[in-house]
Amino acid sequence: MGIVVQKFGGTSVANTERIRNVANIVTDAYKAGNDVVVVVSAQGDTTDDLIEKAKEIGAKTSKREMDVLLSTGEQISMSLLAMEIQGRGYPVISLTGWQAGIITNSSYGEARIKRIESERLMRELDRHNIVIVAGFQGINKYDDITTLGRGGSDTSAVALAAALKADVCQIYTDVDGVYSADPRKVKNARKLSVISYDEMLELATCGAQVLHNRSVEMAKKYNVKLQVLSSLTRAEGTEVRGGISVEKMLISGVTKDNDVARISIVGVDNEPGVAFKLFSLLAQKGVNVDIILQSVGRGSKKDISFTTTLSSLDTALEVINAHMSLFGAAEVISDTSVAKVSIVGAGMINNTGVAAKMFEALYDANINIQMISTSEIKISVLIDKNMADLAVSTIHSKFIQD
Amino acid sequence: MGIVVQKFGGTSVANTERIRNVANIVTDAYKAGNDVVVVVSAQGDTTDDLIEKAKEIGAKTSKREMDVLLSTGEQISMSLLAMEIQGRGYPVISLTGWQAGIITNSSYGEARIKRIESERLMRELDRHNIVIVAGFQGINKYDDITTLGRGGSDTSAVALAAALKADVCQIYTDVDGVYSADPRKVKNARKLSVISYDEMLELATCGAQVLHNRSVEMAKKYNVKLQVLSSLTRAEGTEVRGGISVEKMLISGVTKDNDVARISIVGVDNEPGVAFKLFSLLAQKGVNVDIILQSVGRGSKKDISFTTTLSSLDTALEVINAHMSLFGAAEVISDTSVAKVSIVGAGMINNTGVAAKMFEALYDANINIQMISTSEIKISVLIDKNMADLAVSTIHSKFIQD
Repeated sequence: MGIVVQKFGGTSVANTERIRNVANIVTDAYKAGNDVVVVVSAQGDTTDDLIEKAKEIGAKTSKREMDVLLSTGEQISMSLLAMEIQGRGYPVISLTGWQAGIITNSSYGEARIKRIESERLMRELDRHNIVIVAGFQGINKYDDITTLGRGGSDTSAVALAAALKADVCQIYTDVDGVYSADPRKVKNARKLSVISYDEMLELATCGAQVLHNRSVEMAKKYNVKLQVLSSLTRAEGTEVRGGISVEKMLISGVTKDNDVARISIVGVDNEPGVAFKLFSLLAQKGVNVDIILQSVGRGSKKDISFTTTLSSLDTALEVINAHMSLFGAAEVISDTSVAKVSIVGAGMINNTGVAAKMFEALYDANINIQMISTSEIKISVLIDKNMADLAVSTIHSKFIQD
Repeated sequence: MGIVVQKFGGTSVANTERIRNVANIVTDAYKAGNDVVVVVSAQGDTTDDLIEKAKEIGAKTSKREMDVLLSTGEQISMSLLAMEIQGRGYPVISLTGWQAGIITNSSYGEARIKRIESERLMRELDRHNIVIVAGFQGINKYDDITTLGRGGSDTSAVALAAALKADVCQIYTDVDGVYSADPRKVKNARKLSVISYDEMLELATCGAQVLHNRSVEMAKKYNVKLQVLSSLTRAEGTEVRGGISVEKMLISGVTKDNDVARISIVGVDNEPGVAFKLFSLLAQKGVNVDIILQSVGRGSKKDISFTTTLSSLDTALEVINAHMSLFGAAEVISDTSVAKVSIVGAGMINNTGVAAKMFEALYDANINIQMISTSEIKISVLIDKNMADLAVSTIHSKFIQD
């Protein structure tokens, strides 16, 4: 009865059969009396194929031209879906990022949405058209095509939902909701019927790949109600929304993240400003730092350890090695055999002893903790990568299956 | 020195190696001091692959959505070429049809260019950028993507050359010029160094596939100097321009066209308005009629014969059968075993006896003429399809090799 935004990822539109399935979902929502806006990603491997073509050219590819190239992927899938829906007799129109008024900044390859100029979208909805929009892409102030980078289509969907004041933004994926732990790894992992934005954000940061952080942050900012659903089973999924989790669970989920490298700088000068210098240099080079741990200084020296992603490791080491004298440091050690295991839950704010219970679970399983990081609704530990799955299932049993 | 528009077809950009070859041609023109605008088609089989995807959907595909789909082809090739040129250190930018300001009407799939809004193009040239434009596509007044249909990229190139007042519009193809007959079929076929627009128009109509008529018509209208060149051999090609052919040849070329069907309506009422009714009905259904022949009426009845393309045959027969009573006709006969053989040449305007010489050649080869059509610079005959190659070589010998 209101406006529904539905987003379908690359696997959901990978081939003709899948496109017909998506058309079923879309037309069902339309028949139920909704205004329907659909956001699609590129079909399955299209993006990889396009990247392969660019690699074959082999030049240091211009980011602007890369975006011109990659944006064709969604244009293909949106037109095919529109054809299928039109073939069933429904009024439908597809719109590229620029046609849909998705205005971004000029950071090609990782553009940010600045605003949605929704006149055209509203006009098409007023004409009772089902509107299919290319995800992942927009246009900058120079009328050049941009792409939004990782999680871009989710972000497109949430931005459109916010601009249109949609009743709900449904994210269809190949899993049927958000689970308390990876269901492929942990027996009895529970599907959550509802989760708060903050919990979802922490879960996303911790490696649960269901929704990209950018889209959840935007949903939180504009209070867009999200639903995570499977395009295949059409089972009831997980709702992501504001307010406290109605389930009152102590923790919502346990996750692991293998994309972690630990770097330790040993023998840093124990004086003010060292951490500032180090982390601003890393930030300048675009190195995202996650957990930071600083040893208590003894005398004139101390140690600083931090974690980053595997892909940032080389850059981080280069930066540090180029400035060893600046820190007065003796040695740099890096370790990629680590994983981050986290528990997330709004319930832990008002509960003491959650951390202790987590550490107890790890002790029971004889797993050594290398680093610890906490936020109001999250506790993360860095452990040996080989022990990560065991850690997740042990913690999950302790908190959720007990 | 001036502005050069270069157009490269699908085979010229079919793969990375070919794209590098095109980049050589483009950068050579740029290094020579020209402002260079490049128009590209979709890579080799891309368009066919996209059509195949749409066919798999199988619905009566919306023409608007088909254009959204097909327009991705040129967007892919233009970005790849831009990457290659940029990798060599030249300033370059790619523009889609809408970015290049190619404004068309709304006939999706066969749109006509209405005007070029060249501000962006001029701005990029002022910045000394090599500008690569997607051929075959434009945008209508609703901001929707359109495609130009057959010969679209040639038309894009000529329209841009006209709008930018380019010094020359170079059409690179897989042949190295315009020949006096198909060189694969006729020994001693001559490459023409120059040909007039009108001759080129007649040759194109007669099945010489080098340039599409629409582009030649536009070139004539805006007096754009065309060059037909091979992107592979880079040999001197054929220039198409205004004025009389400097070669003073009686005829420029001999062509055949197998895409012909003949329809005869026997026993039509011998009264005014019958031809008008017939051909306006056919025009309404989009049936292009080429040669028309009407028998001298004897008494109350006469016969009307005409030719059309093979793809229009069914539609034409439907139209006629549905209106037989309107014409008072007795019978409709169609024949697809025919071909049209034509001679073209500005020289024949001032020469009598050209037709007689052509008919003599056919008589020598014992080939029967079914229909005859003439214009100021062209004579076409309809003959048995199996005799067409023999007819072409016989006529070619008579006029050109003699």
